[in-house]
Amino acid sequence: MKTNRAKNGLVAILALLLLANMAFAADPLPSWNDTVPKKAIVAFVEKVTKEGSLDFVPPSERIATFDNDGTLWAEQPMYFQLLFVLDRVKALAPQHPEWKDKEPFSSLLKGDVKGALAGGEPAIFQLVMATHAGMTTEEFDQIVKDWIATAKHPITKRPYTEMVYQPMLELLAYLRANGFKTFIVSGGGIDFMRPWTEKIYGIPPEQVVGSSIKTKFEFRDGKPVLVRLPEVNFIDDKAGKPVGIHEYIGRRPIAAFGNSDGDLEMLQWTTAGAGARLALIVHHTDAEREWAYDRKSPIGRLDKALDEAQVRGWTVVDMKADWKIIFTPEGK
Amino acid sequence: MKTNRAKNGLVAILALLLLANMAFAADPLPSWNDTVPKKAIVAFVEKVTKEGSLDFVPPSERIATFDNDGTLWAEQPMYFQLLFVLDRVKALAPQHPEWKDKEPFSSLLKGDVKGALAGGEPAIFQLVMATHAGMTTEEFDQIVKDWIATAKHPITKRPYTEMVYQPMLELLAYLRANGFKTFIVSGGGIDFMRPWTEKIYGIPPEQVVGSSIKTKFEFRDGKPVLVRLPEVNFIDDKAGKPVGIHEYIGRRPIAAFGNSDGDLEMLQWTTAGAGARLALIVHHTDAEREWAYDRKSPIGRLDKALDEAQVRGWTVVDMKADWKIIFTPEGK
Repeated sequence: MKTNRAKNGLVAILALLLLANMAFAADPLPSWNDTVPKKAIVAFVEKVTKEGSLDFVPPSERIATFDNDGTLWAEQPMYFQLLFVLDRVKALAPQHPEWKDKEPFSSLLKGDVKGALAGGEPAIFQLVMATHAGMTTEEFDQIVKDWIATAKHPITKRPYTEMVYQPMLELLAYLRANGFKTFIVSGGGIDFMRPWTEKIYGIPPEQVVGSSIKTKFEFRDGKPVLVRLPEVNFIDDKAGKPVGIHEYIGRRPIAAFGNSDGDLEMLQWTTAGAGARLALIVHHTDAEREWAYDRKSPIGRLDKALDEAQVRGWTVVDMKADWKIIFTPEGK
Repeated sequence: MKTNRAKNGLVAILALLLLANMAFAADPLPSWNDTVPKKAIVAFVEKVTKEGSLDFVPPSERIATFDNDGTLWAEQPMYFQLLFVLDRVKALAPQHPEWKDKEPFSSLLKGDVKGALAGGEPAIFQLVMATHAGMTTEEFDQIVKDWIATAKHPITKRPYTEMVYQPMLELLAYLRANGFKTFIVSGGGIDFMRPWTEKIYGIPPEQVVGSSIKTKFEFRDGKPVLVRLPEVNFIDDKAGKPVGIHEYIGRRPIAAFGNSDGDLEMLQWTTAGAGARLALIVHHTDAEREWAYDRKSPIGRLDKALDEAQVRGWTVVDMKADWKIIFTPEGK
């Protein structure tokens, strides 16, 4: 009996040691190949979290900011929020008979997306305001939730929330496991992202920074509401990104992740701080598993930031070479 | 020996039980008298944190917002940020010889504060911009840190960071211990608060919402900076508070704490949500230990919100009757 007990005890201890060892050896970034970007990420995280090291950063200052379109989820054949706009115009058309004879709505309703967008920024502004303003914040929240739950990507036919990059989900989780607070800093609409970022990325609404329109507090049927106005409040793109980071977060990130020239100033701002810094650019190089585009793409153009990455030694992810898989597995 | 061991074991168990019991019985709000407000706070917290209860709120949605001036720290004889402005005008005067003949600066520099402020909002705007704009965000951060570390309250002669309400510090800690995320939502300047709120209140920069001026991203000596512009960006007061809550936090608080009519809309917005809600007003009733003021005070006027508190059953703290001590003990 006694010998058996001792044996059992020994087995239990060995099992525990084995489990501990497995946990230690578990790869936090399994979808990343063992190439330069993964090594740079891990080296950075180990450096800033090692107490007593010169590069140590206390947890409260471990701020990491992520662009969304093209960095956390795909952005082709056009920004997903623009596809939301197109769907909403169609859904709202019966309530707007005047749209039949009014550009850019008329082209759009005839199925001519290119014609509708030919009007450039003013046309897009009109489409965005017609679909994003005029309702309460709670109503818009529900509209986005309903759309994101049902809409499918025009090419892959998958839900948009499955067009997110599995390696980046692992990166978000890895940073958080190491005491980082992860934020989105996107040119996309703040209220278009917040209804689903917590579930999909583990990023709560209060850690989402984005572009916004103004809202107004008023009473409707005796109940206080916030009404969305057709007026730009803030554009969180390019030089707006450091401004948004300062305004919403109030401290400089130590790590920033982007994929286009719209992220250049965020990367400059992040790396200009003292101490260890990580700047990473996702380069879309995989025409087979995703899309390949950079210097000449109208969506997610990566030109100046790619040059600056070379000069400054920022980490550039070659999606084709550095990522084992691109999207989250189906149904996940 | 065996009996002794058993006895020792029993003593150890009893000691543990006693300690556990003490921990259980430890009062999380020792500076609060056992009057209605404390009971309302504790009942609310127990209700929303009790799993399985109808009023249960998951931790991610336990958002609590606090006004600052008059709610977390004092605001008499005038808002502390205004005292900062006056100090800064004096400090900057040598660089601005033209101020000698220019109102509101000239009155102020002659020691006539009342005369300087007689110009109303436009005068205050001029003083604020002269002291808050024109430098980089990092420079302003340092200016505030230096001031808050050395300036003393004109009447009590204590540092401003010791003019914070001990019962409210306990309340902040109590809420956080129960899974709440605590935010400041103040009419005060966001960049005037952020340099010290983490140390004093345990509220990090990214959980501070306040009024702001615009900033601009540019390069100085090859280094990216954010320059503070003399242009209002956002006024986080009255109907601006729900707007600010929506914009910065992105979800409705379940508890809100204020002290003046500037907080009325925040309290209305908070309590209009479904489920258990807590709205609390700090009423300044203690002329001996602090100041007594409400319906007629130009600073922190509490009039409409006091009426609405009666109608809606919001919790009103009578500082004189409900708080054992007001300020944090000296040197803490």
